[in-house]
Amino acid sequence: MKAEIISIGDELLIGQVINTNATYLGTRLGEIGIGVDRVTTVGDAKGAILRAFKRAWAEEDVVIVTGGLGPTHDDISKAVVAQFFGKQMKLHAPTLTAIRKRFSKAGYAKMPESNIGQAMIPTGFQVLRNHVGTAPGLLYSEKGKTFVILPGVPHEMQWIMQDSVLKYLRNRYKGKGLEVIRHRTLLTTGIGESSLAELIGDVKDILEPGATLAYLPKSPIVRLRISVRGKSERAVALTMLGVEIRIRCKIAKFIYGVDDETLQSAIVDTLRETQSTISTAESCTGGLLAAHITSVPGASDVFKGAVVSYDNEVKIRELSVSKNILKKHGAVSEEVARLMAEGVRKKLGTTFGLSITGIAGPTGGTRAKPVGTVWIGLAQSGHKPIAKRFRFIGDRSAVRERSTINALDMLRRRIHDL
Amino acid sequence: MKAEIISIGDELLIGQVINTNATYLGTRLGEIGIGVDRVTTVGDAKGAILRAFKRAWAEEDVVIVTGGLGPTHDDISKAVVAQFFGKQMKLHAPTLTAIRKRFSKAGYAKMPESNIGQAMIPTGFQVLRNHVGTAPGLLYSEKGKTFVILPGVPHEMQWIMQDSVLKYLRNRYKGKGLEVIRHRTLLTTGIGESSLAELIGDVKDILEPGATLAYLPKSPIVRLRISVRGKSERAVALTMLGVEIRIRCKIAKFIYGVDDETLQSAIVDTLRETQSTISTAESCTGGLLAAHITSVPGASDVFKGAVVSYDNEVKIRELSVSKNILKKHGAVSEEVARLMAEGVRKKLGTTFGLSITGIAGPTGGTRAKPVGTVWIGLAQSGHKPIAKRFRFIGDRSAVRERSTINALDMLRRRIHDL
Repeated sequence: MKAEIISIGDELLIGQVINTNATYLGTRLGEIGIGVDRVTTVGDAKGAILRAFKRAWAEEDVVIVTGGLGPTHDDISKAVVAQFFGKQMKLHAPTLTAIRKRFSKAGYAKMPESNIGQAMIPTGFQVLRNHVGTAPGLLYSEKGKTFVILPGVPHEMQWIMQDSVLKYLRNRYKGKGLEVIRHRTLLTTGIGESSLAELIGDVKDILEPGATLAYLPKSPIVRLRISVRGKSERAVALTMLGVEIRIRCKIAKFIYGVDDETLQSAIVDTLRETQSTISTAESCTGGLLAAHITSVPGASDVFKGAVVSYDNEVKIRELSVSKNILKKHGAVSEEVARLMAEGVRKKLGTTFGLSITGIAGPTGGTRAKPVGTVWIGLAQSGHKPIAKRFRFIGDRSAVRERSTINALDMLRRRIHDL
Repeated sequence: MKAEIISIGDELLIGQVINTNATYLGTRLGEIGIGVDRVTTVGDAKGAILRAFKRAWAEEDVVIVTGGLGPTHDDISKAVVAQFFGKQMKLHAPTLTAIRKRFSKAGYAKMPESNIGQAMIPTGFQVLRNHVGTAPGLLYSEKGKTFVILPGVPHEMQWIMQDSVLKYLRNRYKGKGLEVIRHRTLLTTGIGESSLAELIGDVKDILEPGATLAYLPKSPIVRLRISVRGKSERAVALTMLGVEIRIRCKIAKFIYGVDDETLQSAIVDTLRETQSTISTAESCTGGLLAAHITSVPGASDVFKGAVVSYDNEVKIRELSVSKNILKKHGAVSEEVARLMAEGVRKKLGTTFGLSITGIAGPTGGTRAKPVGTVWIGLAQSGHKPIAKRFRFIGDRSAVRERSTINALDMLRRRIHDL
């Protein structure tokens, strides 16, 4: 049982849009035991699309196509599908009604003419309803194979997958060789990829049949993905557990979470368990640290608020950073980072206060404090505030992101006494 | 002149990692006139990689491969490349020295054994230095075709492209059919894709030979990409200008920027020109709006700071929101949104104050105020603060993102009197 994902759109080839649809489809198909064999991305050109359809339909069991179902002239996928399977196009009345309703509900006096085309369906194709957009999905089945075409707009594609496609595929291929495939990812920080591999040693001593281990570095985080294939949930779970335990024995202190956990979700959980609270004071990250923490559902249990003190006046007035210290050491300094952390902690009455002050660039660097210089401060009630200096490489966005992750890791280490 | 990008890695197929490398490569290759014909993603499996190499090497002029050059057991790309081209592997002494140096510089007593493999090079391949990581890139040329393999870690891949590959390709294919390809994207908001297409009308009246137009919707933004191919920079620029003017004549008021501009960069520019300043007060977005604004280089000219008032106590103490109003109307209300916007504006002494209070979910919704209910407040010195209610569909992250974009658009419309 294997699948190919075909993503259509010039915007993907010229680098204007990142192909997140393939990521979503890979995850969802894997969950129901269908491994993705290949992802092919082609432009809005009939010849390239036809070649991709031909190859995928010959080699794979399931083909999922996204993109090119919109109402405008550059959306040609449906016409190419009809040609490829030798089908006529026919108006599908219920779809047209649904599209008209969508427009009237949105307050339009009438539906734009161009949307009529979205209700034209190749004969023999099943229409997959779309409650969050105008373009329905289409499904065709022949000789045990399945061909699906979906809109390229991510939330529409996801809605149709969830509403109909995943159920269809699960029923259609139940008992026909669907393997159980499970992944589990151990998240580490504070150690590089090669050093981690040395600690873990020979993978043959760690793995079992059906299991593989992959290293996914993204500084300052290295993820270790364990993948297991097998006949039953039970067998796969047992193998997974064995592998995970053998790895944990070797690198326990570097692991901060698993799978989709983030540093911030691990921290929010621990703060909640220990009934502690946190606030942040941010300069160069401008709210990004607070935004990371509040991305965790239920963060309000532990996060009280933040002061983004972009302007030095705000550091003085709102965070009680002394004017003299600012003048003497500069805004990007150990002293100011400590005062910011302690200032916000006291102001909002939290257990911890975390601060970031640095030079994100592209300008503002000096010889003594080049772009990428960042001080991270940590205050804790009953302790003296501390601050640590970092020098990050990369553009403004990379410096801001790394500052945020390292601030979170600094807090994690303090909470766990590492 | 066409190229294929081959991305290698199970993590891409199972949906664990988004393929941003293909996006980067598509952009950079396009800039030097090499159009990407196809992107193929395959897993860390010898058979699949070999098949992808074979097809690409037969059909394309340039093949760029990323991934599988790391030091761990799952990195097999280089061995497969050597096999595909029938080459032996040989130790490349300068590369080994460079890797050793990297480790000693990073404070390691010795280089991990596993990194020696990264200095093994297939004979006949050119070594592409990598100053930001341990794996060098490799380049092979034969019969006018070029095959390049690069590490999968994005900033290493980008560094090598910039340092050597782009220069090599430009020199190698100069005068050999490199076309000029240019894209320009008009960014619109406040109107849907179909309605925009109706206003623009028949594309035949808009375009010229060599030009295409594509619609890229991502609510609440629709991007219009104009692409032009031609023989010279001058001809392409002229065509581009003509097409852009004809489009602007029809939809001027919906356009807020071009290309990589963002709502926030457009706003920062306008605020700077009008010598205005801005501050934000955020509840459910928890700093995301401030983080968006401060992502713009030079935002400090116009952005003073933010108060993230996640806790109601912080709304009362720091933003002067009255306890009674909070009790009577709730934190997610028109009154509180207005008070938050005016509160932060006064506190930080800015021209504008922008506030967001809402229910991002997944919990916290009620019948009267379901998840996705968001009030956005806007205060301006000399004006009465206003607030507008939104109801966003989607998960926590989508609600937070849409709240942020709509807040920015509300500010943009006010600044431009729309």
